[in-house]
Amino acid sequence: MTSGATTTQEVRALEWTNNRLRLLDQTLLPTRVEYHELERWPQVVTAITSMQVRGAPALGVAGAYAVVLAAQELQLLPLPEFREKLTHAATTISAARPTAVNLGWAVSCTMGAWDAATDTSQAIALFLAEAQKIEREDIEANHAIGEHGSALIPAGATVMTHCNAGALATAGYGTALGVIRTAWAQGKLKGVIATETRPLLQGARLTTWELTQAGIPTTLIVDSAAASVMRNGKVSAIVVGADRIAANGDVANKIGTYSLAVLAKAHNIPFYVAAPMSTVDLDTQTGDQIVVEERAAAEVSSPQGVKAAPDEVGIFNPAFDVTPAEYVSAIITENGAFTAPYSDSLQVGAKSRG
Amino acid sequence: MTSGATTTQEVRALEWTNNRLRLLDQTLLPTRVEYHELERWPQVVTAITSMQVRGAPALGVAGAYAVVLAAQELQLLPLPEFREKLTHAATTISAARPTAVNLGWAVSCTMGAWDAATDTSQAIALFLAEAQKIEREDIEANHAIGEHGSALIPAGATVMTHCNAGALATAGYGTALGVIRTAWAQGKLKGVIATETRPLLQGARLTTWELTQAGIPTTLIVDSAAASVMRNGKVSAIVVGADRIAANGDVANKIGTYSLAVLAKAHNIPFYVAAPMSTVDLDTQTGDQIVVEERAAAEVSSPQGVKAAPDEVGIFNPAFDVTPAEYVSAIITENGAFTAPYSDSLQVGAKSRG
Repeated sequence: MTSGATTTQEVRALEWTNNRLRLLDQTLLPTRVEYHELERWPQVVTAITSMQVRGAPALGVAGAYAVVLAAQELQLLPLPEFREKLTHAATTISAARPTAVNLGWAVSCTMGAWDAATDTSQAIALFLAEAQKIEREDIEANHAIGEHGSALIPAGATVMTHCNAGALATAGYGTALGVIRTAWAQGKLKGVIATETRPLLQGARLTTWELTQAGIPTTLIVDSAAASVMRNGKVSAIVVGADRIAANGDVANKIGTYSLAVLAKAHNIPFYVAAPMSTVDLDTQTGDQIVVEERAAAEVSSPQGVKAAPDEVGIFNPAFDVTPAEYVSAIITENGAFTAPYSDSLQVGAKSRG
Repeated sequence: MTSGATTTQEVRALEWTNNRLRLLDQTLLPTRVEYHELERWPQVVTAITSMQVRGAPALGVAGAYAVVLAAQELQLLPLPEFREKLTHAATTISAARPTAVNLGWAVSCTMGAWDAATDTSQAIALFLAEAQKIEREDIEANHAIGEHGSALIPAGATVMTHCNAGALATAGYGTALGVIRTAWAQGKLKGVIATETRPLLQGARLTTWELTQAGIPTTLIVDSAAASVMRNGKVSAIVVGADRIAANGDVANKIGTYSLAVLAKAHNIPFYVAAPMSTVDLDTQTGDQIVVEERAAAEVSSPQGVKAAPDEVGIFNPAFDVTPAEYVSAIITENGAFTAPYSDSLQVGAKSRG
């Protein structure tokens, strides 16, 4: 597992190289594969808000490296000013998107490395080591998630997934797609049904791109076709990622996840959430406390940048929804697959964190 | 009600004028309002397959006028040849789209006017009278549907609808939107939530356009947000149209309808289907016998004409789904709102047909 970071063949959403953050611009996929080299921390914030990088674990890694970039920029300042401006940068980076817990968590972990530093250059070295540790551990976690999740997938299965919880959403390998990759490698998987995931089409643009590159047979459907595909008996299991999991097992994830969870229950299909323990937020008691980001109206009114709705219409564009724990068959983490009651099992899972 | 055809203020999807079928090209809405004047029946077939005209009742009216156009084109032929070629045209028109029952029904009604004719010009006059009767009766039916449906809507309601079952989908006024228009006129309606309806965005492009033109407050959401909007208590009722209703009450309608029906049941929200009796097909016993059209992959892989998915991915693009009768709270027709058991109530409804 420790070799995961270097041997993985999957696309990398981001990479630390030459003291810069090299980032794949996911808004251009699948038609263009283009990387940006970010030197300044506000560029990372822009990349996050514009969704050039997205996916809770990838946001965490990006946030951690943004702290390193900020520290590099500020390193010639006197220590008190360095500390003050860096804290401001960290706060801004954490707030770039509100729903995913990993962003704030990773920024806070990285800033925590501060305590052992006596000067700014030492702080930078410690921040970088911490960011690289977060990145490496995320890839390792995803491989473990793949193993634990694949054990739940029956032979000959067709798995449905929503949005993109793949290599592109993480440091590598993926969470939900980690489960799918492992099940495929173990010869258990017949194929994948990917929902396109309006408004930003991460399913169509990212998931089908990742899976077809991996040679996994993938069928794309519009989001609203999921129910009839389930009814026709074509789905063995649903596996999705998560942006934040509350202590009681409620799951915030891409808009449409809750819809699939309710439909899965109605069709007796198991509904699994795959995420690293860093996505579990024990400080959030229930899903009611999770802030759901609302994004720009144009994402809905102008699909693919082409105007489709009259100006007079109101738009409601929540980026996420919250799936109550009762709809979740298991939460698959690097420490194992946990089942209800989650208020107990997630506490146990958190304690076994490495 | 008899003045419905002339007094309605709503947009007209089609109109017979100067011995031609004048047709609003709905693929261009809402950004362009453009009419085509069709002189030849194959142009109507193309308009139907390319969805310039769509919606089960509107397809019926278009099909009826296509028979008139065909008869006009063929009128100089000797009677046996006229009859043979016209029958061929009628078969082709009926087959332009397979799922909506109204198309075949209206073509068959129009061809039925034949029996009283002794020459081709008399046949044309009879076909035209029949087509105009179908058109007029559809508008009248929709006003009656509006009355019967509005009686089911509570004061202060927010109604969710899917796709477009409005003036644009019918000869005028609309079925589901007929219910909404009447409820609004009666001061009962707070507003409408319209689902965008991928892949062709009839909700975003057509329904929000119709409703905002009528001054009805409308909020547009992506299809997959419907579940969380329901959970948040924002939906009083769901009203949709239908393309074919089987004798047992199973309903074929735009893909995503079944999804909304299952979600409505899970959230204790009434789910209504509004359609004229011409959409009820007593010859189809259950939904299992309904042919569901699959449409081009590009509708999914290139939303708004912009490529979004890699070439390697498979696409499954059913245009419709079938909602089992058990999910339908009532079927609202011009002859009243019928409830389960539909195998009884729809028979009664059909017998009271005018």
